[in-house]
Amino acid sequence: MTAPVYIALVHYPILNKHGEIVTTAITNFDIHDLARTSRTYGVARCFLVTPNKTQQGMVAFITKHWSEGYGALYNPDRKAAFESLELADNLEQTCLTIKNAHGSGPTLIATSARHNERSVAFGELKRSIQQSQEPYLVVFGTGWGLAPSVLEQARYVLEPIHGPVAYNHLPVRAAVAIVLDRLLGKSS
Amino acid sequence: MTAPVYIALVHYPILNKHGEIVTTAITNFDIHDLARTSRTYGVARCFLVTPNKTQQGMVAFITKHWSEGYGALYNPDRKAAFESLELADNLEQTCLTIKNAHGSGPTLIATSARHNERSVAFGELKRSIQQSQEPYLVVFGTGWGLAPSVLEQARYVLEPIHGPVAYNHLPVRAAVAIVLDRLLGKSS
Repeated sequence: MTAPVYIALVHYPILNKHGEIVTTAITNFDIHDLARTSRTYGVARCFLVTPNKTQQGMVAFITKHWSEGYGALYNPDRKAAFESLELADNLEQTCLTIKNAHGSGPTLIATSARHNERSVAFGELKRSIQQSQEPYLVVFGTGWGLAPSVLEQARYVLEPIHGPVAYNHLPVRAAVAIVLDRLLGKSS
Repeated sequence: MTAPVYIALVHYPILNKHGEIVTTAITNFDIHDLARTSRTYGVARCFLVTPNKTQQGMVAFITKHWSEGYGALYNPDRKAAFESLELADNLEQTCLTIKNAHGSGPTLIATSARHNERSVAFGELKRSIQQSQEPYLVVFGTGWGLAPSVLEQARYVLEPIHGPVAYNHLPVRAAVAIVLDRLLGKSS
């Protein structure tokens, strides 16, 4: 039995280049890519978290095109992908939605490109997920990363992704794909 | 000693939705994402393959912005990423460039979302790369996938990426990230 795994892409509270707390804009490609990657790895639901109602409206408009409009006819696979998306005002609302579905709130896992004293290894988290039936929520940041308040709120912080070299500035779309593959993929 | 690994994102010859051979348009997000992911995994060079000179001009313009213009000052990490990018008219030119750098042409590895009788497992290819000093070129398609002629040209076809469910319509940006992580990443 594998635990239900949720992911969230957070647009507030986020650090900008100068270390200030900001709301980032939603990137159209993130919506499509995270929907498709989530669907491929059997993610229970992918939350797009932003308090900005105009941005939420944009996501709803795009989702409608691919779910009900011409897009659904043109590309049914994209329609299936978009079914895994859900908007949320904030992380608290996200956790509450998950709690309402499962009876217990999710174990919150933050991600970061930097090491943290509460870092958990991929292998360890993968085993926990495989041995549990309680929900997990893996949270990804945009901009220059999740605000410290989110990292403090999390039960664990997933260890950073490293390639063979020192450079690690992955797009969040790539980070989500790699994290889901390491946690839920079947490598051979 | 690990072999030098190159990747190529091919825009011709590509299948469209109806199985016809077409040239796809370059996607701006692919340029950024593949550059950053390639740099993270120590890929020797990422080739963007298109015969379309106007499209090549667009890539050159964007590359210049991030390598020499305001973009290079604003985001030096992006500048470093773009250094791994190179344009090519076709796969033959790509192979010749690699041959000129190493004395021998690359082992050509195609990727596909479908199983192929010449499919090679990720673990097997990873071991080959680790035990070799000769260059490898891993080729990714756009649109509805690489044309059959490219698959036939390849020495091996990498097995498809599967999550725990049947759906597998990953964005190419996600597929590149997962393939590089499985072949060159250090998972824990």
